[in-house]
Amino acid sequence: MKLKQRGKGRRPFVQPILSFVQLLILSVLPAAGTAVADRLILKAQGSFFVGGRTVFTDALTGAPAGFLDLGTNTGNITVDQMYVRYQIPEGSEKHVPIVMLHGGSLSGKSYETTPDGRMGWDEYFLRQHRAVYIPDQVSRARSGFDATIYNEVRLGTRPPGDLPPIRTASREIAWPFFRFGPIFGKPFSNEQFPLQAFDEFDKQVIPDLNAELPEVNPTWANLATLAQRLDGAVLIGHSESGFFPERAVLINSMYVKGAITIETRCPTNLVPEQISILTRVPILVVFGDHLADVPAYATRWMDTFASCQQFVQTVKNAGGNATMMHLPDYRQLGNSHMLMQDNNNLQVADLILEWINDHVEKQKENRKLIH
Amino acid sequence: MKLKQRGKGRRPFVQPILSFVQLLILSVLPAAGTAVADRLILKAQGSFFVGGRTVFTDALTGAPAGFLDLGTNTGNITVDQMYVRYQIPEGSEKHVPIVMLHGGSLSGKSYETTPDGRMGWDEYFLRQHRAVYIPDQVSRARSGFDATIYNEVRLGTRPPGDLPPIRTASREIAWPFFRFGPIFGKPFSNEQFPLQAFDEFDKQVIPDLNAELPEVNPTWANLATLAQRLDGAVLIGHSESGFFPERAVLINSMYVKGAITIETRCPTNLVPEQISILTRVPILVVFGDHLADVPAYATRWMDTFASCQQFVQTVKNAGGNATMMHLPDYRQLGNSHMLMQDNNNLQVADLILEWINDHVEKQKENRKLIH
Repeated sequence: MKLKQRGKGRRPFVQPILSFVQLLILSVLPAAGTAVADRLILKAQGSFFVGGRTVFTDALTGAPAGFLDLGTNTGNITVDQMYVRYQIPEGSEKHVPIVMLHGGSLSGKSYETTPDGRMGWDEYFLRQHRAVYIPDQVSRARSGFDATIYNEVRLGTRPPGDLPPIRTASREIAWPFFRFGPIFGKPFSNEQFPLQAFDEFDKQVIPDLNAELPEVNPTWANLATLAQRLDGAVLIGHSESGFFPERAVLINSMYVKGAITIETRCPTNLVPEQISILTRVPILVVFGDHLADVPAYATRWMDTFASCQQFVQTVKNAGGNATMMHLPDYRQLGNSHMLMQDNNNLQVADLILEWINDHVEKQKENRKLIH
Repeated sequence: MKLKQRGKGRRPFVQPILSFVQLLILSVLPAAGTAVADRLILKAQGSFFVGGRTVFTDALTGAPAGFLDLGTNTGNITVDQMYVRYQIPEGSEKHVPIVMLHGGSLSGKSYETTPDGRMGWDEYFLRQHRAVYIPDQVSRARSGFDATIYNEVRLGTRPPGDLPPIRTASREIAWPFFRFGPIFGKPFSNEQFPLQAFDEFDKQVIPDLNAELPEVNPTWANLATLAQRLDGAVLIGHSESGFFPERAVLINSMYVKGAITIETRCPTNLVPEQISILTRVPILVVFGDHLADVPAYATRWMDTFASCQQFVQTVKNAGGNATMMHLPDYRQLGNSHMLMQDNNNLQVADLILEWINDHVEKQKENRKLIH
């Protein structure tokens, strides 16, 4: 396994706008890390939506009649659409496109510039000649959500108990739950998350409205549609969306060329027919470090890990191609739940790229040689 | 005035992922329009947040005690932060950076790829060697919002009447109000908005939670801070945010090098001291066509236009540099409220770039020559 040395001190990309916090950080980092990255050369970039349907609403706003400055409170709106931003670098035609989906109470921002201003996976994969697609989940961020129920409660046409709970993570929960350290304010000695930028990280944490979505989350079908539009893609999911790549495979296995599941609970109630479909696609499950080391959430993380160990074994037993990548077994120590933002995020990316090379792209070449 | 010919048929950037609707559109457009754009060469790109403060909440979720899977419903969260994505092209050091802020029930998506797959202003300004910064307003999209009040109402600790109304625009309102045509479903004969992609446009329309913000919208200070971090920027606001550039100037006039106000109501209650501050910065106000031609909203649009004509005159009378650019007077006919997405969006961009050149950058050169 070739592990290029991309240590903690290396910052191949220095964000030109620096907050005072970041300036403080830079001032204590070795000067060797200040090299400016090469220019980024793109064939194309842009954004678009996948999915979406038109629904009637009787509560365009929560303002009562008489206070409607546009005249009416009813009409048709679009819901369930998924925003996707993409960039296509030179040389990408040799590789499978990558879709990176964020977790709960987060947005596509997860994969962009890290809280301490280092390169995110979006740009790193681009620089490895991969076309990169970053969605916001349905009901989050630029994908929007259906506000009808909130407005109906305000108007009194529905009881408050009908409101779906909106979910936000506090600073005090995020720190230990994301395994930045054993308790709030205290890091692990080998912690990889850039905790000097914890305040910046916390700005990424936004309300999660997924509780208003149906049991079959529209994001799953949108991911399957996206993979089809791209004529094949590797899907990455994280945390809340960790198993969404597999959900997309279960909807349409033709175009998902690889499913990468980062730190989520794997379902244990899949029926044999579902497992059989999942054997058609290479699957990688990734977990970071310190799963048993946060007292408040140790049982939860160990159960989560065990559920995916079982899932990987079940797929293998059915003849599938599934890999469990517990990062400490791959010489990456101290990784948090937000491993795409950790100090060694590019080394973890290299491990994933190597898996894609070995299990998705080489397989493709082999198939071409055989047929 | 040099107006380069960028007609309706020209699509310098063809999005590689085409929906069936888009394929249909392409099939009826002249083949001359299918030229692929030049590569885009970037010095840097990324995203970060501006502003934000930590507040205590007693309703992290709307789930009652006993259903809290992370143990507690209280804690500190970050609110009022503003997400900003940026790209810096080669040659940008000669030019002032541009910040493009979106309007109501919309997000930064407004300035990206148009609904019918043409180049947005974000990429066009990049290709004119401008560093481009695209925020999401505070309480919208990737900037998140404070969900406390919604959860408190669900938990019964607040009455439903406390809920701020969330605002969404229906398809039936957006069409005439954005002046896509005189009534829903009918375009103006010279309409510039790409109505064949109206369904795609409607996916950009998302719930607007600005009603929960204080009267002094945190986005205003965040814009002023952003301009300062960039050591000078031209700020563009649209519709709901149309006057936000001037609000940023009123907070700190040092770093806003130009304020561009697109299609909004201009305040008529500014005091002489405020007008005096606004004379320090070049101001451009832009309006599209058909202001009097939508029966349901003609009075509203004409009043809006008149308020800005008065504002421009007031600033001029006080010795300031203010320009009213009513596009029909600049030979651009048929423009909608969403003029950054209209078929002639790049011609409108050229007019704005020419204004920036004449009123912001040449002024800077002149000042350098004098001093």
